[in-house]
Amino acid sequence: MPLMSLPRPKKLIRPLVHGLHAYVPGEQPKIKGLIKLNTNENPYPPSPKVLRAVTAAVDGRLRLYPNPTAETLRAKLAKLHGCAPENIIVGNGSDEVLALAVRCFVEPKPPENESWKLEAGGDLTHTTVQYFTPSYSLYPVLAEIHGAAKNAVPLNADFSMPSVAELRQGKLWRFDAALNLVTTPNAPSGRGYKTNELEKLCRAQNGVVVLDEAYVDFANENALQLALKLPHVLVARTFSKAYSLCFQRVGYFVGHAELIAALDKIRDSYNVNGLGQIAAEATLDDLEFYRANFKKIIATRETLARALTKLGFRALPSQTNFMLAKPPLFPAEQWLEKLRAKKILVRWFSAPAVRDYLRITIGTEAEARALVKAIGEVMREKLV
Amino acid sequence: MPLMSLPRPKKLIRPLVHGLHAYVPGEQPKIKGLIKLNTNENPYPPSPKVLRAVTAAVDGRLRLYPNPTAETLRAKLAKLHGCAPENIIVGNGSDEVLALAVRCFVEPKPPENESWKLEAGGDLTHTTVQYFTPSYSLYPVLAEIHGAAKNAVPLNADFSMPSVAELRQGKLWRFDAALNLVTTPNAPSGRGYKTNELEKLCRAQNGVVVLDEAYVDFANENALQLALKLPHVLVARTFSKAYSLCFQRVGYFVGHAELIAALDKIRDSYNVNGLGQIAAEATLDDLEFYRANFKKIIATRETLARALTKLGFRALPSQTNFMLAKPPLFPAEQWLEKLRAKKILVRWFSAPAVRDYLRITIGTEAEARALVKAIGEVMREKLV
Repeated sequence: MPLMSLPRPKKLIRPLVHGLHAYVPGEQPKIKGLIKLNTNENPYPPSPKVLRAVTAAVDGRLRLYPNPTAETLRAKLAKLHGCAPENIIVGNGSDEVLALAVRCFVEPKPPENESWKLEAGGDLTHTTVQYFTPSYSLYPVLAEIHGAAKNAVPLNADFSMPSVAELRQGKLWRFDAALNLVTTPNAPSGRGYKTNELEKLCRAQNGVVVLDEAYVDFANENALQLALKLPHVLVARTFSKAYSLCFQRVGYFVGHAELIAALDKIRDSYNVNGLGQIAAEATLDDLEFYRANFKKIIATRETLARALTKLGFRALPSQTNFMLAKPPLFPAEQWLEKLRAKKILVRWFSAPAVRDYLRITIGTEAEARALVKAIGEVMREKLV
Repeated sequence: MPLMSLPRPKKLIRPLVHGLHAYVPGEQPKIKGLIKLNTNENPYPPSPKVLRAVTAAVDGRLRLYPNPTAETLRAKLAKLHGCAPENIIVGNGSDEVLALAVRCFVEPKPPENESWKLEAGGDLTHTTVQYFTPSYSLYPVLAEIHGAAKNAVPLNADFSMPSVAELRQGKLWRFDAALNLVTTPNAPSGRGYKTNELEKLCRAQNGVVVLDEAYVDFANENALQLALKLPHVLVARTFSKAYSLCFQRVGYFVGHAELIAALDKIRDSYNVNGLGQIAAEATLDDLEFYRANFKKIIATRETLARALTKLGFRALPSQTNFMLAKPPLFPAEQWLEKLRAKKILVRWFSAPAVRDYLRITIGTEAEARALVKAIGEVMREKLV
């Protein structure tokens, strides 16, 4: 059995996968005392009832499979949203349901090679994932992994959404894209969108529209009703941000039962871990606790926006638990480093639309005060 | 905005997904006092140290994202297996890494429609997922979801694996399949395979070979070395069965760093929940506890095999935590019902190769005694 004849690993990997960029995980610095305002996690812990429910479940039952369809959780979510459990699919974080949507509703482009050819006049409509830029940076990644076509269309300069008339005029937006992914409120800008403008966009689309409401609990309104009233609209929600359960990986879609059933066919059988299901169920039994947190975070957000404005920042209005703020004196990228030197970590993106801004997660009031203090110090050091 | 113009959900779903069968979750009866010997879960709880580690982690940190690359767990696994962390990818159960392998190494067949045509002489090699039957029933499902071609080749009647020469002679097996999935020891038969026969098979293949060792801790030998020595072989392992962590969803691949890096590019960023990582890490710190369990389960398996043989069953030799046993007096399907009436749940499959057998999970000694007692009762009732 000569070693010479063994296949080379590189040859075994799909050309599509070769072409993908390696995943770069988010920064997780281990600096002691660091204030972490870079990944939009909730600064407050889950409710004591949630912690008790999870702790109580850590016993011999870990040896058993979790409920494969998250039955109890879906029943509770259905009650909350005024729909049926058949309108809900739960995933290993909302990232998983977003990935399922790409695989369920979008045809991959066949690789153009010696075996397969696109016929003259062949239709690429069914292969297109469409989204606005800037928005959640996962969308192009999911499209690339699936081998789908991408169509990225810029938001307005103030991060508002172009109207349907403007989109038609601009000619970049495709009303026949197989899947449209809309972050609402938008990330990374924090800008909120009105349900009636989202509805107009949805009604103009021929494909599936996912309204990705990861941050909606910090907003003035949500568009959940659209998922129950329009047959091609899915609303994505997560327990990660507003409900302090990033660690547990629970997110979900609400939408038409036929779309949900199709998604259900392609998910892993036991995709949601058992303790995650228990944590999410207990969360829904204690929503008052979280609503109080949302109020606190929103209050901190508004206080911080005023303080930053006073310091010469341009803080954009936010409907989320983070904000974009354009700093004075130095380029944003330099501010990132200057704040890190003071043990405060915020986020900076190199994309042209946002490179002049810092994205700041809304932490606790104390963290916001520490940020304002650090900024003041940086500015005084400049003046010296 | 007339409702008439809205898209119909059915039209939005890929034809491929329409063609899939809806997932039917495994039976989870809520009968009180039922002895559950149907899903190959471990009858013993995780180690007290694991339960303490998980409990200790249930606090405010649930608000934070888990480590995206399961860094600590991969380092511990690398130490255990004598390889580098770059040789390991962790998934949301081994089901997830199996699904990733299909998406990473196998081209989907483009749908034959008006846009795309297979050229004369076009090559389908790269679209084929191959496996033996019977084996893990997930494999054809994963191929179908991906739109890959399936090639299912029967094992010998005694569930032994045909030799490479026999496979060549039989002409059904393809040595150029993009991905080969081999359950070893085999499920549902429990039959073990020797590393040297697996190596011969691997060396004859041009595509990727996954040796799915979900049950290997109950076997006499394992083939992990093949993943470290052959560039196209991945070994799949799971914490579910042997390590009593079904609820937590942790499985992994060991293999060549290039294959692992390719898989890593297409997984969800935070695919493994945090408490699952912690449970798996603590498990690796207490392997002695589990090795004692394996011994107990193997002892129970051998005792049960002898008792069933005495009662006229044909119990097949098993290298797993379950066994196939061909019952006397009634067809296997009827035994399933008769045992259920006595509150013992075993498994029966309708596939021709195994329809004469019951698949019995090895439970505790007390559960095995209860099964033998119930079987004796069923047989006496027949005689009366």
